[in-house]
Amino acid sequence: MLREAIFHQAGGAYAYPIAKDTLMIQLRAAKDDLKVVYLIYGDRYCGTDPVDRVIMEKYASDQLFDYYRAKVQIKTRTFRYIFLLDDGKERYWYNEFGFSKCRPLGYHSGYFQYPYIAERDFFEIPDWVQDAVVYSIFPDRFFNGDKTNDPTTVREWGEKPTSQMDLYGGDLAGVLAKLPYLEKLGVNTLYLTPIFKSPTSHKYDTTDYFEIDPHFGDKELFRKLINECHKRGMRVILDAVFNHCGYEFAPFQDVIKNGTKSKYWDWFYIKDYPITTDPVNYETFARNVWRMPKLRHANPEVKEYLLQVGEYWVREFDIDGWRLDVANEIDHAFWREFRTRLRAIKPDLYIIGEVWHHAGAYLLGDQFDAVMNYPFREAVIGFFGERTLSVDAFDERLTINRVTYPKQAVDAAWNLLGSHDTERILTRFKGNKKALKLAVTFQMTYQGVPFIYYGDEIGLEGGNDPDCRRCMPWDEEEQDLNLFNHYRKLIQIRRKYEALRKGEFRTIYKDEATGIYIFERYTENERVLVIINNGLKEEEVKIDLKSLGFDPTKTVQE
Amino acid sequence: MLREAIFHQAGGAYAYPIAKDTLMIQLRAAKDDLKVVYLIYGDRYCGTDPVDRVIMEKYASDQLFDYYRAKVQIKTRTFRYIFLLDDGKERYWYNEFGFSKCRPLGYHSGYFQYPYIAERDFFEIPDWVQDAVVYSIFPDRFFNGDKTNDPTTVREWGEKPTSQMDLYGGDLAGVLAKLPYLEKLGVNTLYLTPIFKSPTSHKYDTTDYFEIDPHFGDKELFRKLINECHKRGMRVILDAVFNHCGYEFAPFQDVIKNGTKSKYWDWFYIKDYPITTDPVNYETFARNVWRMPKLRHANPEVKEYLLQVGEYWVREFDIDGWRLDVANEIDHAFWREFRTRLRAIKPDLYIIGEVWHHAGAYLLGDQFDAVMNYPFREAVIGFFGERTLSVDAFDERLTINRVTYPKQAVDAAWNLLGSHDTERILTRFKGNKKALKLAVTFQMTYQGVPFIYYGDEIGLEGGNDPDCRRCMPWDEEEQDLNLFNHYRKLIQIRRKYEALRKGEFRTIYKDEATGIYIFERYTENERVLVIINNGLKEEEVKIDLKSLGFDPTKTVQE
Repeated sequence: MLREAIFHQAGGAYAYPIAKDTLMIQLRAAKDDLKVVYLIYGDRYCGTDPVDRVIMEKYASDQLFDYYRAKVQIKTRTFRYIFLLDDGKERYWYNEFGFSKCRPLGYHSGYFQYPYIAERDFFEIPDWVQDAVVYSIFPDRFFNGDKTNDPTTVREWGEKPTSQMDLYGGDLAGVLAKLPYLEKLGVNTLYLTPIFKSPTSHKYDTTDYFEIDPHFGDKELFRKLINECHKRGMRVILDAVFNHCGYEFAPFQDVIKNGTKSKYWDWFYIKDYPITTDPVNYETFARNVWRMPKLRHANPEVKEYLLQVGEYWVREFDIDGWRLDVANEIDHAFWREFRTRLRAIKPDLYIIGEVWHHAGAYLLGDQFDAVMNYPFREAVIGFFGERTLSVDAFDERLTINRVTYPKQAVDAAWNLLGSHDTERILTRFKGNKKALKLAVTFQMTYQGVPFIYYGDEIGLEGGNDPDCRRCMPWDEEEQDLNLFNHYRKLIQIRRKYEALRKGEFRTIYKDEATGIYIFERYTENERVLVIINNGLKEEEVKIDLKSLGFDPTKTVQE
Repeated sequence: MLREAIFHQAGGAYAYPIAKDTLMIQLRAAKDDLKVVYLIYGDRYCGTDPVDRVIMEKYASDQLFDYYRAKVQIKTRTFRYIFLLDDGKERYWYNEFGFSKCRPLGYHSGYFQYPYIAERDFFEIPDWVQDAVVYSIFPDRFFNGDKTNDPTTVREWGEKPTSQMDLYGGDLAGVLAKLPYLEKLGVNTLYLTPIFKSPTSHKYDTTDYFEIDPHFGDKELFRKLINECHKRGMRVILDAVFNHCGYEFAPFQDVIKNGTKSKYWDWFYIKDYPITTDPVNYETFARNVWRMPKLRHANPEVKEYLLQVGEYWVREFDIDGWRLDVANEIDHAFWREFRTRLRAIKPDLYIIGEVWHHAGAYLLGDQFDAVMNYPFREAVIGFFGERTLSVDAFDERLTINRVTYPKQAVDAAWNLLGSHDTERILTRFKGNKKALKLAVTFQMTYQGVPFIYYGDEIGLEGGNDPDCRRCMPWDEEEQDLNLFNHYRKLIQIRRKYEALRKGEFRTIYKDEATGIYIFERYTENERVLVIINNGLKEEEVKIDLKSLGFDPTKTVQE
């Protein structure tokens, strides 16, 4: 037995509550090494050593490892447990102190413990999240629904953007006007990049967190948009840009004017006075982005101000979620308070962090529901687009991405092919629409929330920022309606099958030679088999549905 | 290369800040597998792939694994990194996506990231903690300094306790009177088990969180005790019993009286009314301990009440720390707020949780400084006492215990040989004082805070609770002064050498045959070599001090 490969810890993705009295427990072992994994568990306060036993399910594998899991329920919510590992030749008991041939016994023998599922520590994602299909709108570029609020220097709709200061007149009236289009596409959740007052096109440099940008509309219109969305069963998520503010933000302007005498001096990280932008003598987002002074969240006034911003738009406008910009450069303490205070106002608020790398520290139930799943995008590009990832490697990337987080965060993840921060997916795919359709088929049938970046569905192209923020073409001549219909169809299929929205994922078959990839999504009531041929030619694959447990007479094909 | 054994995650004990701009990064590999481990790191916002490189130090090993670590500093506090692993035959790059033969390049290539060391997320233990030697006092059994406040039913001092209701008259005046004794012993931090009003001897069933138990004294006396301790450079830690209250606690009594009409009904988990104690029809500490109704921390009123208790004794009496009873059955959210609010009052407050098992989820800087290190006790018993752990197994237990937590939590851990909740160490050692002295020598020279349970230092014996809570014998005839002097001497040595208090730990030599165990504690300025013979006879070991880098002319022996 390769004991070095065995891994478990009583936390994170390896032990977490999935109900008030039920733990999901995961164990990792070397690939194809173990025959049976027993989980022996009991109540921590039971006077004798635990005897309840369950055989763990091998539910995922990658190149090096198998992943086992089991659910265990204890009404009193206090758990201790030990593993018994059997590879057919030898058996080891595995607990906090390591491995042993004989079973360690007694209260102090090193049981793994999940001491108590406390009410407030439970990781709960909103019910509606698993039904969501997200559509991401960059308001200045989506549709100009009201020319009366256009900036004076508005550019011609459809001209390629060349700077982050280009404004095209897109607005909230435009979003409102296009709700029928979005309904037709089938999406049910809108994510708007920032809409608060700001001089740039992207508005990630906020001037006023409590005002809608006047070129986008006003609060009355925003309220109308929310109402219209809600009437249609659509939800709306806004962008919380709390890592930094804009240069025009009043407190920063006060510091520029009054220096250390400003009561906002400690809201920022000012290195020198007077403030200069070349060189930049204050901390900013990234490095020397003068338009985006970094906020000092350790200052209780700043913290309180931003929390009140978060609360305001939920309480006053009933928005359904916040996407958190540069979430990984704000302290965990802030996000914990954010979740607590905002969920108190709206218990089913959806909270998604922008974290491009491993986000385990944010996904324990106390901060975000999920993150924007950029590793998903990278895997999809590697497999379907660039063809640099084999089917095994692709499956491995997905497996790592899934087994790394509690199931709640996997179910709530934003599985995106592109965003306002990346090259557009069709461009990254070098215009290969066949490959893109396959990738979309995968996206819409995979575990987690599909996320569409506006325009991708009609074949809009664009390189890195600002080119990925081109105007949405509304002339159907300029839209790829065939691609649109593909998106639409796959969204309909997703919405039709509960297993695609809420099911577990299981790899069924993968073939390095042909590029065939078969996986299953399943709930207790329903099973969906997805068969993807990522090879360059047609292939014949025989699937014995019966051996997979399907009843062919009750099977439908989409 | 045994890739299955390689482990890293960008959090927990594997990546954590040790200064505002410095990370400690750890990697695990199979034992004796790797020749060199490079850590290649850089600023996340550097436009090109990182090139700065450091060779990681192999700083600990156990039976299966080697542990490597390195410190990396980036002034801007935003990190990304990748490992290059070399076993002499092959090389692998290792990042979030796994292993590869060629270096993955580009921003999205899967770098491990520690995105930002935020001010509020930094794990800071009080400066004084590493100088502490803790003495744990069970007040009813330490010394009766004031007979006027004795309970009416007081038992004869020295009779064996048979019930948790036995009271012997020990009190705060007794602690005050014995400060010279404690000073002579050399301890500098007192931990008092609960002193608030309660009917039992242990007082873990609180009647009134805002009153000193009248048999122990009053607030005036307590204030005097604190002042006298502080004058002597001693600190005082109290016991926060927040998981449950006592049966006599006024809110619980109100529920007993008024049922669902009580405004405290939701402070508890009441299953049925009227309240009965046989059977117990409300949740309690452990199971059916009717004296200890469990508190409902998810109720904001309960949370606020307990936080105010915590604040009160710090703000009004200037206590130096809280030991948290049954800390693992109260939610993490509570403890985070506890730390934030109490540290705001006293920035160098020491916070220690009672967690007997792996406590990683509590030791990330946002909750406790450390936990009571019961696995340390188990290891010491196994090696020195029962002789069921070989020197290799002992070293392994210690290694696992150390590499599992951030260094701050290791430095602040309460390394105990016994407590009011365990059989006394001498009894567990079956009276073997020679073995106990060796164990104490180890305790006082090991990394973390030595914790002495009152009476252990003069050879007091006792089985499990209540026998481990016998009265402290003050007649020197009944005290083992030889053992006392051993404790005293070792404490003096610890206090003399900075390396013993603040140094890193490194295993130098261990011999399964003889039981010889040699380790080093070291700081930049000082190195202490500790040589322990746990064999049954004298052994001759040759140590080449020069090859270990010592200058024999500058070496002293204690």
